[in-house]
Amino acid sequence: MNTKFSFRLIATDGAARRGEVTMPRGTVRTPAFMPVGTGGTVKALYMDQVRNAGADIILGNTYHLMLRPGAERVARLGGLHELARWPWPILTDSGGFQVMSLSKLRKLNENGVTFRSHIDGAAYEMTPERSIEIQGLLDSDIQMQLDECTALPAKYSEIERAMELSLRWALRCKAAFGDQPGKAMFGIVQGGDDAKLRVRSAQALKEMDLKGYAIGGLAVGEPQAMMLEMLEVTCPELPVEKPRYLMGVGTPDDILKSVARGVDMFDCVMPTRAGRHGLAYTRRGKVNLRNARHAEDHRPLDEESDCPAARDYSRAYLHHLVRSQEALGAMLLSWNNVAYYQHLMQDIRDSIEAGQFNERAALISEGWAQGDILPL
Amino acid sequence: MNTKFSFRLIATDGAARRGEVTMPRGTVRTPAFMPVGTGGTVKALYMDQVRNAGADIILGNTYHLMLRPGAERVARLGGLHELARWPWPILTDSGGFQVMSLSKLRKLNENGVTFRSHIDGAAYEMTPERSIEIQGLLDSDIQMQLDECTALPAKYSEIERAMELSLRWALRCKAAFGDQPGKAMFGIVQGGDDAKLRVRSAQALKEMDLKGYAIGGLAVGEPQAMMLEMLEVTCPELPVEKPRYLMGVGTPDDILKSVARGVDMFDCVMPTRAGRHGLAYTRRGKVNLRNARHAEDHRPLDEESDCPAARDYSRAYLHHLVRSQEALGAMLLSWNNVAYYQHLMQDIRDSIEAGQFNERAALISEGWAQGDILPL
Repeated sequence: MNTKFSFRLIATDGAARRGEVTMPRGTVRTPAFMPVGTGGTVKALYMDQVRNAGADIILGNTYHLMLRPGAERVARLGGLHELARWPWPILTDSGGFQVMSLSKLRKLNENGVTFRSHIDGAAYEMTPERSIEIQGLLDSDIQMQLDECTALPAKYSEIERAMELSLRWALRCKAAFGDQPGKAMFGIVQGGDDAKLRVRSAQALKEMDLKGYAIGGLAVGEPQAMMLEMLEVTCPELPVEKPRYLMGVGTPDDILKSVARGVDMFDCVMPTRAGRHGLAYTRRGKVNLRNARHAEDHRPLDEESDCPAARDYSRAYLHHLVRSQEALGAMLLSWNNVAYYQHLMQDIRDSIEAGQFNERAALISEGWAQGDILPL
Repeated sequence: MNTKFSFRLIATDGAARRGEVTMPRGTVRTPAFMPVGTGGTVKALYMDQVRNAGADIILGNTYHLMLRPGAERVARLGGLHELARWPWPILTDSGGFQVMSLSKLRKLNENGVTFRSHIDGAAYEMTPERSIEIQGLLDSDIQMQLDECTALPAKYSEIERAMELSLRWALRCKAAFGDQPGKAMFGIVQGGDDAKLRVRSAQALKEMDLKGYAIGGLAVGEPQAMMLEMLEVTCPELPVEKPRYLMGVGTPDDILKSVARGVDMFDCVMPTRAGRHGLAYTRRGKVNLRNARHAEDHRPLDEESDCPAARDYSRAYLHHLVRSQEALGAMLLSWNNVAYYQHLMQDIRDSIEAGQFNERAALISEGWAQGDILPL
């Protein structure tokens, strides 16, 4: 067993990187997509489905878990891995993003954020130190610094203020995290849509010599081109020998283009959320199962997939389940989508190792552009 | 493969019967509990979970399926077994019960019922002939006659009228069903809470020489004692060599006491509906996972169960999932409950074969009465 957290670069192809993040609970093959296990469950899936689809790591949301069942309670129950029956690596966010987007009566100052739970109105204080403490109670393998994420568009002065605050909080989180060889605390690059602020943030974080670096504050309303531009200025400033995680991203196309710019890790609720809304991700793009064209289509979503949800159930049945709002519809489509994302990542990893990432990425994009199979 | 529908009595113990209903798609070990697959899905479960829990047969609701996806559409898609990926026997109800409980603007006369869909208000006509036609389009293995089920309490004249109408409809259904050796059409005993009407209904149906007999119009609001009294007067009037199905029943206790009175088959939404409401059936009675006593209880629902939902997940996790209204909570508890019901039926079958049904039933009841394991 590896007792230390480490990152190893196996191959590169242009800016695209093929690597491995190793920690006591397992190895994460990168580029990696982390299914989101919001409140200790990847919605509507069994953990063995998530694992068998190819996921090496899942994400837990600190905000949701601190409110329910509560961080101290999770710790008494043996940690999040034990509670949720996922013995492999878990990354947790800091809670900051959802404090700002979901909680009530939040108030931010230098020390941290005070807020009230969106569930029962109970008052909480979140500081950099408390965020790290909570993530430790959850027994998270990769923990995130508390940061302030600015929604775009925003004024320069506002972006700069939040970025500088996030840097100060990174230092406090690093101190609070201390020396834990088997785990990691990642810093988060902020700076909104301003290239110079992004560079300043990345350089300052690099100075802190953290075990990994996230890029935050993107996919928050800006066009994809802007996001990619920010990646192009940020990634070269980050140390080659540390993993890079683009938070909350994204569509399969976002992932492909971000890998091309040097990103190693991703997370997004998209596969599971889309699955609950009747949408399936496939090699031929996104398929809306609510559409009447599927009503008498006996063909599966993708007969070549090795995911049972994609291969074994007719579109007609999926259409019926979605229209009838049956739980099994969300279960099957979430499964299909999580599996599709994992297949995509495997495809990406293989192509980087083979030195054919660009060619493969072009073929994958062509498949999406081709669109779904013709109606019967 | 058996090409004919048949029933075989293997053992009896008092009035309790151990048998086998055989048909081309498989053999149903009786006493049998049929999980309800309302609209082509046993809610929140994968069919392999239902099968592996021990179910030989599931029930489909004609009313739901005729409205969505539609009987003709199901037929074009290869039938309900193909659509729902359940290749084993399926029993369908006639649709009559839900027409009366769910639809709008229903109007009943000698010919049948006209009504409007509760989904989109579309007009439908349901006659005995159309009910059998629909069940044929679904490719159901065991079909039910259209009947009129009277909610209790009701006036004698009303119960009698509905019972007599149901007998005339039974004849029309028998004629419409015709000669289908691999399938069966069951008549339904009505007569409310009146013993003489029940006997008259049973005798008249027996005269029709049907392949099986259901007992309807019970578990519709009357006390359990009344239901059992009606079983005691009805079962002796039914032919020994035909299967007997008590419709819509019931709790584990209802089942135990009905088996003791000669019933062979059951169906009920209780295990899946309870599962969606945070309730678990166990050897120690019903457990409410919402209850705070489970919040930090690391023990599973039943460590001796061979159902993963009962054996592998902590009560604390189930409690958290239920409180958070996570899909996985309903998935796990529905699974536990369907498995518990199947284990109960296996237990019942074994004890009848061993000639120890009463002793075993007493022990099972003692387990329920004992209540859940003590809090930690």
